[in-house]
Formats: sequence, structure tokens, C-alpha cells
Amino acid sequence: MKPVSSPTDPVVIAQELVRCQSVTPADDGAQAFLASLLEEMGFKVTHLPFGPKDAPTPNLYARIGTQGPHLCFAGHTDVVPTGDGWAHDPFKASIQDGRLFGRGIADMKGGIASAVAAVARFLHSHSLHGSISFLITGDEEGPAHYGTKPVIEWLSERNDLPDFCVLGEPTNPTVLGETIKIGRRGSMNADITIYGVQGHVAYPHLADNPIHRLLNVLNELTARKLDKGSEWFAPSSLQLTNLDVGNTATNVIPDAAHARLNIRFNDCHEGKDLAQWIEGVVARHAPKNEVKIAISGEAFLTQPGVEVDALKEAIRDVTGLTARLDTGGGTSDARFISQYCPVAEFGLVGATMHKRDENVDISTLEDLTQIYFKFMERFGL
Amino acid sequence: MKPVSSPTDPVVIAQELVRCQSVTPADDGAQAFLASLLEEMGFKVTHLPFGPKDAPTPNLYARIGTQGPHLCFAGHTDVVPTGDGWAHDPFKASIQDGRLFGRGIADMKGGIASAVAAVARFLHSHSLHGSISFLITGDEEGPAHYGTKPVIEWLSERNDLPDFCVLGEPTNPTVLGETIKIGRRGSMNADITIYGVQGHVAYPHLADNPIHRLLNVLNELTARKLDKGSEWFAPSSLQLTNLDVGNTATNVIPDAAHARLNIRFNDCHEGKDLAQWIEGVVARHAPKNEVKIAISGEAFLTQPGVEVDALKEAIRDVTGLTARLDTGGGTSDARFISQYCPVAEFGLVGATMHKRDENVDISTLEDLTQIYFKFMERFGL
Ligand SMILES: [Zn+2]
Ligand SMILES: [Zn+2]
Repeated sequence: MKPVSSPTDPVVIAQELVRCQSVTPADDGAQAFLASLLEEMGFKVTHLPFGPKDAPTPNLYARIGTQGPHLCFAGHTDVVPTGDGWAHDPFKASIQDGRLFGRGIADMKGGIASAVAAVARFLHSHSLHGSISFLITGDEEGPAHYGTKPVIEWLSERNDLPDFCVLGEPTNPTVLGETIKIGRRGSMNADITIYGVQGHVAYPHLADNPIHRLLNVLNELTARKLDKGSEWFAPSSLQLTNLDVGNTATNVIPDAAHARLNIRFNDCHEGKDLAQWIEGVVARHAPKNEVKIAISGEAFLTQPGVEVDALKEAIRDVTGLTARLDTGGGTSDARFISQYCPVAEFGLVGATMHKRDENVDISTLEDLTQIYFKFMERFGL
Repeated sequence: MKPVSSPTDPVVIAQELVRCQSVTPADDGAQAFLASLLEEMGFKVTHLPFGPKDAPTPNLYARIGTQGPHLCFAGHTDVVPTGDGWAHDPFKASIQDGRLFGRGIADMKGGIASAVAAVARFLHSHSLHGSISFLITGDEEGPAHYGTKPVIEWLSERNDLPDFCVLGEPTNPTVLGETIKIGRRGSMNADITIYGVQGHVAYPHLADNPIHRLLNVLNELTARKLDKGSEWFAPSSLQLTNLDVGNTATNVIPDAAHARLNIRFNDCHEGKDLAQWIEGVVARHAPKNEVKIAISGEAFLTQPGVEVDALKEAIRDVTGLTARLDTGGGTSDARFISQYCPVAEFGLVGATMHKRDENVDISTLEDLTQIYFKFMERFGL
């Protein structure tokens, strides 16, 4: 891996990153490339491979400075699969009509590139008062068991937690500067199986139809208005995602029925309370049941304060826009970081993320670099 | 196929029939055997193969006599598959401890054997005043498209319909003489598919969850009390028999959801009205839908009168029991016959029908023969 000639140019760094075919769990040199850049800039780089010995998740922690305040740029180098139908090679990082094309350019290799370029410029022009770090994982798009979660735990054990974290996910729906995410909803899945007694449809009194019981369960679950939303969150939402009985006979009442649901919940709830509620409703309508709950993340919120204000100011300086503080959308690794450290998410425009011909306007890479630069100044580094 | 030595012995006839491995659509000589017996007794036998030329359904119509009254014995020579785990060879017709074992002995080769034996005895001891016929199909347990239905239509076209029909299905749950069936509920299946708009669970407002719409449909359908039953019928019953979405992703709202239901309905309803009701409910909750209705049979009733009374008397003479008039249970070919001719169903004990080691007490074959014999006398043949 050759060091790039201009570590202050986010476009060049982003292109190098896109050319690494790092579809989860592959890395293809992405983290070694970042490590070489950061070491050249004076960072102390620690590789933190967690997970199975034969196929660990690549993670990287790099820090420069020893004092506070400590600002951390977090991100992921892995990308989702390309899918079919691209007009541009997804790993060539070609530029056309002012746009840079490639898998992961928006989510979120461009965000990492802008952070690296901003830090390089900052170290050239300022004498560092505090500390800057990078927390980069190679598994955010996959199971994420051995990525950001154990790295932030490792930092916590070393008493090395940052004071604030910026995660460069593509938070802007259409225009750079629209949206800062200061929290995310929690997410849980419930797998519900109801057992009945099989029988012939002509003799329903001799059977116990589990589908009718399941219907009562799902009615009660979907009828509840979980909340009205909270200061920073939209109302929580329960969505049924699957039904399955697998009965091919038209004249047989089956012996079991299955449903799956997902709840995106705000800070009015904790996962365990929702789990108890679901289990209670199921048990009331169907004593013979099995309920499997998986909480992928609790809701979290970084209360807006001086750091978020500083980020808003930096965005306004560069784009002229007043960013909206938002908590919507899917989950991100911010759910792990927020357990230990305040975190805000701000990156590029995500309109094409996870889609074919993912791309960004190359001018937004420069703008995001300047936003991160101004934020570092306001942060007091 | 050798003619049996004693056409008046139902046990011998039943054994010969069981030894034909006539699992639908196979015949294995069953109808040829019956034809030879009936021809020997003086019947004019007509083979009526309906359906595909290369694999027609074997059917047989045999008549003796030219005048009224005309009594018809109906039945089927086909049997359901054996399944596993038999202690007795399902096609050997072995007798042990006074019971005859074999697939189809109860449903309903034993019923046919008793009818043939009863007629043989009757023709030996009486000079026939009216007419007796047999309507035997080789597809009652299968799709039944080319069995009793076209045969009874063929009789109707020839103006040769019987005045009354006895169908020898195993109507008695535990003891011979318990139950005459004078009707059956109708049966319909509905396949309901609801279309929505796929999306991510985090953005339900951008999707249209077809499972939630389906839930509303199924709620309304199951909430309706179809009726309170009628003079001879239990209340109609709607049973959900399958649910299917086939969504493996936990974070995706699917684009379609599927349910299937069966209604067993009494003479308060016609299939087409129930179909309209279902289509209306589905359309109201889910404009984008597909509903496939299949009516397997309408409800029908043979109003009890002199013929059913005569059958009850014959049963009482032989068994000492007063048969209950019933309309419960599954469907049978009586649904086709009833469109053209009054029909009552009475046969052996059905406790082991469709199960492994299907068997009947051999004394019930003789008793049923005597019941049919006495019924012919009371019928005025
Ligand atoms: Zn991402
Ligand atoms: Zn039958």
C-alpha cells in the first residue's frame, strides 16, 4: 500500500479507500492504508482484531496527543455488497460530471476521508492542545459483534474514552448540512410461535386453532399506541414482518403458527419492558407458546449541548444551512459508542447509499473536510 | 378375476375388494370384480370412464329392473394411501379376533360388500317389483371431478335418476346403528393475497405493510358469527388454515401477505354469497388483493321422510338402536347426488377410517347386510 501524495485531499483518500474491495467481512487493505496515513501524521496506531482467531474483525484505534479535550472520529471501512446493474465499476472510484462513484463512497469511506484530510490540515496549521483519535471498524454492515462494541469497551477499560465522538455516517438525505443525528431509536425483533392442537376443519371443536390465537395476539400487539413520541424522537413503531404456518392441506387445522415483528422504539422505552409486554400478551392469548426476543440496540440520545452546537456552527459556516437535529432512521454503531461517550453523527449525503451507482458530489467531500476542520477549532483542540 | 363362491356373504366380497390395491387413482380390478358379481345376479352393467382419455376415472353403473320405485346403492372403490406403521398387511384382508383388517374396509369397501350381499339375498328371496342400481366410482378420495358427479349427470340426462339413494360411507362413529347422515355442510376454501409496498421497518411511512392489512381482513372475517345453526345443522364454522409471507429479512416490511381459510357452512348459506362477503371484506381493507375461492360443495339436506324413516326402522330391527339424523363431518359424494336425487348415508363404523390398521368387526358386515335387506323390503322393492 503506497502512502498517498496529498493526505489533505479528501478526494484522493476517498478514491484509495473505494478501490479496496472491503465488502463485509473483507478488508482488502483498507485499514492498513488508513494506518499508514495516520502514522505518517504522527498517530499511534493500534490494530484491534476481535472475534474468531481464524477470521477476526479488523479494527483500528489511532490517537495523537495525550491531554484533553479528546475528540474521536469514528467510522467503518466495510461496505455492503454491490448488487447488480451498476453503470460505473463499483470499485474504480471514477469521477464523472463532478461526482465520485463507488460502493461505500457515501456510507462511509467519504466521511472517513474527509475526517483524515481535516485532521491532516489541522495538524499542519495548529499546535494541538488536546487529543484526536480514530476508531475504525471493519464490521458495521455485518453482525457487528466484534467491531465498534469491543473497541469502545477496550477504551473504557483503559480509561481512554474520548470526551466526544463524531461518527461520519451519511446523515444528510439530500443536501450536505441538513441533518445531524443525535440519537437513534432502539430496535427489537420478536419471534412468536403459538402451539395449538391439529385437527380436521370439519371438527374444529376437537382441535385448537393456533392461527386464531395468533390473530388475537397480533391484534392486541398492533392495537397499542406505544407512545406519542418524545422531545427528540418520533413515535415508536411496531411492524409485523413475517407470518408462517406452512400448512399445505386445505382441510387441516395446523398445530402451530408463527409470526415475527420488529419494534423501532424511542427513549420512552427500554427493550426489556417491551419484551415483557409481548411475552405477557402472548401468554394471555396462548398458554402454549415460544417467544424469542432479540434486542439489537436500545434507544439512545446525546443531549444537545456545546459540542452539538459547535458542530451546527461549523456546518452553518461552510454550507449556510442550519442542521436539523434528528433521531430517525436505522441503527448505526453510535448505539455502542453512546453507552460510553456522547456521540453525534454527521457525514455526507446518503441518497445513494446501499444502492447501485452509489455516489457523492466531490465538492461535498471538500465541504465536509472544512466542516470537520472548523468543528475541531470550536472544540478547543 | 374369479367370481366369488358366495355373493351373499359380505365378508368374502369385502375381502376380495380389499385385496384390490385401489389407492386413488388405481383400480386394480376392483370394478371388474364388482361388475362380474352384478352381471351374474342379472344386472346390466355400464362402465362409464370419464376424464382424460389416457387416464380415465373408472366408474360403474349397474341396474336391475325397469320400473319404479328405483333404489340406488352408491359408493366408491378407491381408498386413501396406507401410510406407515401397519401391524397387518393393508391389502391382505386378514381376520384376527373377529375383526377384518385392510385399507378401505370401513371406507367403504365393506359398505359396498354388504349392499351387494343384501341385494343378492333379496333377489334370491323376493320377486323384484321396482329397480335396484349401483353407482360406483373409482375417485371419491381424489379430486372427484370425473367420478360420481358426471355419472349422476349422465343418469339425469337419460331420465334414469333413482328415487332414492343410499351411500354406504362409514357414518357410525363407534357402534353400527348410531348415525344416518341426511345432509352435509358445504365447504369452501379461500386463498387471500394482500399486496402492499415493501420497505424498511425503520421507515414504515414509506411502506404499506400488507400483514397489517391482512390482520384487519382476518379480524373482520373471524369476528362474524355466520349463523346459529339450523334445524338439522350445527353452526357454520370458519377456520384459518394457513398464513404465509416468506420474508426472511428481519428489517424489511414485505410486499405481500397470504392467508388461506376454510368455511364449513350449513343450509343458511350458499357458497357464492360467502364468496362475495369475503371478497368485499378483503377489498375494503386492501384494495390491492387477489382472492381465489373454491367451493368444494354446497350444503345439502335430504328432508327426513318415509325413506329415512324406513332406514331408521331397518336399523332398529337389526341393532335395536335409534339412529341419530346427522349432518356433521366432512364432505362426501352425497354432495353430487343430492343435486339430483334424495340421498341418505349409512354404512359401517368409521373409527379407523383413513388410519393405519383400518378394520371393522366382521359381525357388522353381516348386520349391515341385514339392515340394507330390510330397508329394501320397507322401500317396496
Ligand atoms: Zn454506514
Ligand atoms: Zn369414503
